[in-house]
Amino acid sequence: MDNTLVNAKTLSGFRDRLPKESAAKSRILNVVSKVFLSYGFMPIETPHLEYAETLIKQGSHEIQKEMYRFKDHGNRDVALRFDLTVPLARFIVQHRHELEMPFKRYAIGNVFRGERAQKGRYREFTQCDFDFIGSSSLSCDAEILQVIYSSLTALNLQEFSIWLNHREILNGIFEHFGLQDNIDSGLRIIDKLDKIGIDSVKLELQKELSISVQMAEEICSIITIKQNNHYEDFFKEIAYLKNYNESLKRGLESLESMLHILHDLEFDISVCRVNFSIARGLGYYTGIVYETTLNRLKSIGSVCSGGRYDNLTQSFSKEQLSGVGASIGIDRLMVGLLELGLLEQRGTMARALIIPLHQDYLPFAHKVGETLRQSNIRAEVYPDITKIKKSLNYANTKGHEFSLIIGEEEFKTKTITVKNMTSGMQRENISLLQVLQIIKQN
Amino acid sequence: MDNTLVNAKTLSGFRDRLPKESAAKSRILNVVSKVFLSYGFMPIETPHLEYAETLIKQGSHEIQKEMYRFKDHGNRDVALRFDLTVPLARFIVQHRHELEMPFKRYAIGNVFRGERAQKGRYREFTQCDFDFIGSSSLSCDAEILQVIYSSLTALNLQEFSIWLNHREILNGIFEHFGLQDNIDSGLRIIDKLDKIGIDSVKLELQKELSISVQMAEEICSIITIKQNNHYEDFFKEIAYLKNYNESLKRGLESLESMLHILHDLEFDISVCRVNFSIARGLGYYTGIVYETTLNRLKSIGSVCSGGRYDNLTQSFSKEQLSGVGASIGIDRLMVGLLELGLLEQRGTMARALIIPLHQDYLPFAHKVGETLRQSNIRAEVYPDITKIKKSLNYANTKGHEFSLIIGEEEFKTKTITVKNMTSGMQRENISLLQVLQIIKQN
Repeated sequence: MDNTLVNAKTLSGFRDRLPKESAAKSRILNVVSKVFLSYGFMPIETPHLEYAETLIKQGSHEIQKEMYRFKDHGNRDVALRFDLTVPLARFIVQHRHELEMPFKRYAIGNVFRGERAQKGRYREFTQCDFDFIGSSSLSCDAEILQVIYSSLTALNLQEFSIWLNHREILNGIFEHFGLQDNIDSGLRIIDKLDKIGIDSVKLELQKELSISVQMAEEICSIITIKQNNHYEDFFKEIAYLKNYNESLKRGLESLESMLHILHDLEFDISVCRVNFSIARGLGYYTGIVYETTLNRLKSIGSVCSGGRYDNLTQSFSKEQLSGVGASIGIDRLMVGLLELGLLEQRGTMARALIIPLHQDYLPFAHKVGETLRQSNIRAEVYPDITKIKKSLNYANTKGHEFSLIIGEEEFKTKTITVKNMTSGMQRENISLLQVLQIIKQN
Repeated sequence: MDNTLVNAKTLSGFRDRLPKESAAKSRILNVVSKVFLSYGFMPIETPHLEYAETLIKQGSHEIQKEMYRFKDHGNRDVALRFDLTVPLARFIVQHRHELEMPFKRYAIGNVFRGERAQKGRYREFTQCDFDFIGSSSLSCDAEILQVIYSSLTALNLQEFSIWLNHREILNGIFEHFGLQDNIDSGLRIIDKLDKIGIDSVKLELQKELSISVQMAEEICSIITIKQNNHYEDFFKEIAYLKNYNESLKRGLESLESMLHILHDLEFDISVCRVNFSIARGLGYYTGIVYETTLNRLKSIGSVCSGGRYDNLTQSFSKEQLSGVGASIGIDRLMVGLLELGLLEQRGTMARALIIPLHQDYLPFAHKVGETLRQSNIRAEVYPDITKIKKSLNYANTKGHEFSLIIGEEEFKTKTITVKNMTSGMQRENISLLQVLQIIKQN
């Protein structure tokens, strides 16, 4: 056998999650999954690997270049999924007759994009999507916003804004300037506003759409309109835009109707703000679009984005299904929660470390462990018989709240010495019942 | 744009999970994760994609052939992981200085093997591993069995058997017959016992190890020894084997010591049964090995297997780390739980479907939904205004327990008509408070 050692490293752009971070991520996903289920969304799972043709038809040119695509053992042209939306489209058409419409699903999974590696961007990352398929009712649009709101507040986030726009509003703006053939390139430029600033947007619009400085300025003066007041006042202020064309009228009315629903159901409407610069680069949106930012951490960008699309399954089927959904950016959200001090990072979820000081005390130690667990206290038994300093150090590093020490005297009398690892307070030779009380009271 | 439709299908050997099944799987994984955490195991995450050289060194020849291996955008030789153990070894060496030893981790993730497609075998499947690294104490071996026991009972399984063996026992048996150079091929044959039967094992041993019929028979008479009584009696009965050689002595003593620990900690020792034919094909086991079968469903094979290994990180580091762990076969376990009627498959987790009969009642319907959720009742609002037959049919198909109907009278009086979807019983125009009581009492 070859004895040279292999270098232990992850691929560039890929990463491991260590216990603290991985446990925190699990907790976040548990919280949001519970919210999804509470609104009647159900999970589905699709493979990480698909026929390349399933994915390429709907991916943008850029995403296609970044796809991990190869030939499998059967010489099939296959690729790792780059998002959870295209597989959803394939899933719906494939299982059409097994699915009840409207179909509400969520999916949590990893996707792969061979982007140029850069700080904070990974080639494998987790997406967390929830979508409402097969109904064009504004009720669904409103519910997706409720789910975003409930998910973020369930994670103890309070100060955030959901920025709303409508694709028909953007279409209408471009149509108004006679630019109906340049909408796609226009949206791509507007989508970069946060990154490059308004002056660069102006310049790019001018260049790429071959329009005058003045027209670029007029477009920018509209797309920078942001709601700062109650939505009813806002819609009065901008009512004049409805006269520009049918697209603008439809977009504005649809947005306003959805806000009415939210207002009437006593949703905390103050988090919603209309913002005409929200474009969502992805080609498939056709209706309401939104992004969500943390008020105290705007720089990390949107933590939850989405919108309505009408042609999800068009690559696979002639049946038109309208859908609306959003995607929580788990990685960004974790960064945000950490910075805001809302994400506890613990080295262990066990509250107590049980330390037997002799081989013979191991069964008693494990019995104590089982008793604690049966009382819903997570507990770990230190497996090695070492100097007590070493095991206490382990408890300190991992973050156990209590060490339960079992020495000769304790073993003989079936008692325990308890050390509170935070206060340092120690109580010797107490009964298991007392131990349970001390831990439960903490 | 190309208008030909793409065929919506998964790759051969890959599959989707529909909502019912996916939700059931999530619940199982939640239950076992809680058990892992309660014993101080913490989750980690590693990428699905690794350098091929990271994986090939430790994979068997067969697994290497089945690997999904390709060149990435940077012409790197990469592959999809085929298990969670090799990435764990890489992980431990790469993060050695960030990890506290002993290191207890669990990992739940998908792995990929391009096996020949056959019924019930998939090329992408989920593994659920938990391991205790960096201690050779029998305390860890005992704890892994506790975790297996707690996980299965937490899933309401009662009748199962954990079959125990020790690699040194198997080594000792082969040594006793002068076959110390043929242990690997011998173990591979014994590992097939359940599939091919004892006569074929005898024949294969004879042929592949070039031994006499008589020797093959003698080997088989030892490996078919199974404990049927209390472990202390069993070890008395087979005490003579300790005299055969040091390997057998060490193996038997180690197994007995671990059973002592389990017995003394008041573990339900009756589920444990020594079985000398448990070989675990994988080359890396060096100590205690085990498999777990469901008493009423032996045919589905082991639902949880594992053992102790001493050379986990040898491809990556000269440091020797001993570990012990097990892997829950989630797919098999799901099949088992389903057959035993222990796995509820529900089309929705929402208990109530709220049905507004007019567009104008939507906000009220959503408000009712929010009120229910705030009382911890999962509830869904039907988004479309249709004939009531259609929405009631949706509730029936998906499995909502209650339909809450909001018609004109209900909307005016802010009341609700509740229909119990199982009994068919209906109560008209009752208050939201009464609705909450009815649902909570159900």
